[in-house]
Amino acid sequence: MKEIKTKVEKICIDAKKATESLANLDTLIKNKILNEVIKLLKKNTPKIIKSNQKDLRNAKENNLSLAKIDRLTLDETRINAIINSIKEIIKLPDPVGKILQETTRDNGLNIKRVSTPIGSLLAIFEARPNVASDIAALAIKSGNVSILRCGSDCINSAKIIAEIYREALEICDVNKNAVIIVPEIEREYVIELLKMDNYIDVVVPRGGKSLIKAVIENTRIPVFKHLDGNCHTYIHEKCDFDKARKIVFNAKMRRTGICGATESLLIDKKISKRILPLITRDLTSSGCEIRGDKESCEIDKKIKLADEQDFYTEFLDKIISVKIVKDLDEAIKHIAIYGSSHTESIITEDKKSATEFLQRVNSAIVMHNTSTQFADGGEFGLGAEVGISTGKIHARGPVGLEQLTTYKYIVESNCGLRK
Amino acid sequence: MKEIKTKVEKICIDAKKATESLANLDTLIKNKILNEVIKLLKKNTPKIIKSNQKDLRNAKENNLSLAKIDRLTLDETRINAIINSIKEIIKLPDPVGKILQETTRDNGLNIKRVSTPIGSLLAIFEARPNVASDIAALAIKSGNVSILRCGSDCINSAKIIAEIYREALEICDVNKNAVIIVPEIEREYVIELLKMDNYIDVVVPRGGKSLIKAVIENTRIPVFKHLDGNCHTYIHEKCDFDKARKIVFNAKMRRTGICGATESLLIDKKISKRILPLITRDLTSSGCEIRGDKESCEIDKKIKLADEQDFYTEFLDKIISVKIVKDLDEAIKHIAIYGSSHTESIITEDKKSATEFLQRVNSAIVMHNTSTQFADGGEFGLGAEVGISTGKIHARGPVGLEQLTTYKYIVESNCGLRK
Repeated sequence: MKEIKTKVEKICIDAKKATESLANLDTLIKNKILNEVIKLLKKNTPKIIKSNQKDLRNAKENNLSLAKIDRLTLDETRINAIINSIKEIIKLPDPVGKILQETTRDNGLNIKRVSTPIGSLLAIFEARPNVASDIAALAIKSGNVSILRCGSDCINSAKIIAEIYREALEICDVNKNAVIIVPEIEREYVIELLKMDNYIDVVVPRGGKSLIKAVIENTRIPVFKHLDGNCHTYIHEKCDFDKARKIVFNAKMRRTGICGATESLLIDKKISKRILPLITRDLTSSGCEIRGDKESCEIDKKIKLADEQDFYTEFLDKIISVKIVKDLDEAIKHIAIYGSSHTESIITEDKKSATEFLQRVNSAIVMHNTSTQFADGGEFGLGAEVGISTGKIHARGPVGLEQLTTYKYIVESNCGLRK
Repeated sequence: MKEIKTKVEKICIDAKKATESLANLDTLIKNKILNEVIKLLKKNTPKIIKSNQKDLRNAKENNLSLAKIDRLTLDETRINAIINSIKEIIKLPDPVGKILQETTRDNGLNIKRVSTPIGSLLAIFEARPNVASDIAALAIKSGNVSILRCGSDCINSAKIIAEIYREALEICDVNKNAVIIVPEIEREYVIELLKMDNYIDVVVPRGGKSLIKAVIENTRIPVFKHLDGNCHTYIHEKCDFDKARKIVFNAKMRRTGICGATESLLIDKKISKRILPLITRDLTSSGCEIRGDKESCEIDKKIKLADEQDFYTEFLDKIISVKIVKDLDEAIKHIAIYGSSHTESIITEDKKSATEFLQRVNSAIVMHNTSTQFADGGEFGLGAEVGISTGKIHARGPVGLEQLTTYKYIVESNCGLRK
């Protein structure tokens, strides 16, 4: 255990040393590093695929699920997608050094609030090698050092990607420890890393709920956490039926495994008898199971009776819960109790009801006549995202470049003495 | 213990219920509540002083230090100061509902990022009854519910102040649980409160280091923490001697007990022999003890030899550490090692060196030719402050109204379906 601690501390000290050089880099250099990464990714595509195949062989031996194996797989198309994501990040404005606020006080003090990098972030992820690149690229552009820790599932793929970033940093004469991959895959290394609050400023866990819970329980470092995405779509009495059907179908069925997928449908009582059978037909004909409250079961026999727990559940599957509500107020209150404050949408042609919903629903993302599947940093124009935060402190919703910065105050005067 | 948990949960549920009504209040109503508070504070001044006298009697019986008794005391002047602080907060713009960013995407989605209250905050403070009012007022103006927990030292004073806030809320037809004081003074109540991460969004500990450490160690709720204020003033070789003397004297001696007081002085080797004796005379003639490195001791006999620990220490007293550095780079590196990332100032007439210092020193507040004693929300124009944060996540430096908000995304379209 002591040996592990020593190794982890060494990683952290290396990272800390790299923070200053990275924090004050010119935008041109940061983009140059990312362009070098692109070149190296292209040049090393066969090598990357070969490393990935090692991971895939292990995955098959370990009987990983097909979904996990799919996420783990890197081929030319996937590597191109990684490259495109870096290209997007290059195009984004530098989030560091922006004057967020400036005032000159009566006593002559000029006070500026200026954005700065946070320092160093620890990313913990599972079987998605593209996450290694996304996070390293976002961290470089925002002037942060990234420590990458991945599970055994994708260690070979992640290692070669991290090495490419380090080579690009060296080519540009920047401390290569601006990107560090933890080569050891044992769990004890994570536990030690999570204790390093003197060195690491923020933790970004990317993965399932159990991973995120384990991180939160084992650290005092701030965490950009993503818990449930139990998203709601509420069909208001004054909706356009055609829009409602299209939006619900897209929100639930486009991809059922993403956190922005609608998991629960609320329907206004005044229109439920007319619209619910249409929606049920749309969904069930695509293989979606519907679990509803008593009232909805009475309207449509295809609906199974839901239990209380169903309304709390993020299914991430072809399942949706349905509840008939008597009005907007009940819908908002239901969301407050059962929701996870991720993304909720109202479908209505009534501007006033929309406004009330958008104001009162206290979720990271609230929508009007829009599919909840749009809850995504890329769709928001933030470029690649580090994740979606369901916390309220610092980062809420998609965590992009801006959320990887903090600020400092610069105070200037000519001999300012306080009275 | 179970009884305590039940009581604390009841408080939290009451607070949670109050969040929605408070979050969506019009600015006029929020200011009206604060104006009612002012009226009630004036009307009840004799009653407040009487309650405070109970606390003062207990304090004397418990042999509290004179400094603590002073902070605890409320008289007409102090109550007026509390009122003035509320007046300042009334004048400040409402931090809620501001459009922080707006984009319309190619697909027609309109995306706004809008500031919202965080929700509910738990303030834990010691023998300063004015903190109860400051925090409750800032919380109301920022649409947040505040749970106030104070120690036994000022419970009677804090209770009457909280009751005044609750009365003002009722007068304005707002849920009075928007301000809640925990009537029990036992430590177990704090421990339980700190577990309530389902209800409380942020903790603001106001008090000494041991309080803050205890809070951090006992909670998973985000904390706006203030650790040390080991502030540095660096006298650069190209300084104006007269300014340097005035600024150092103000930065150290104006008030030695505040977190923005300079605790450590760095002097450029090239001018140390000329300027250090002048500074030493200024400070020692006001009773300040100087602890310096070897080199400075050789320059002036009045200086005692410092040990390593002195350079890490926030004295909060008439004591200062002094180190001779060979150049700007050494000064910056010394600050990175020994500083607490609170506030540091450079004194120089050389613009280039100032810019380098302001950029490279990674503290919440960096200054040029300015006394570090200006590190204060009021001086920054933020109105009363909840505290000064030495953390980097969400709030850095003075925590004012803006730092008590978070944001949500409002997404609008006319039948937005994701491809």
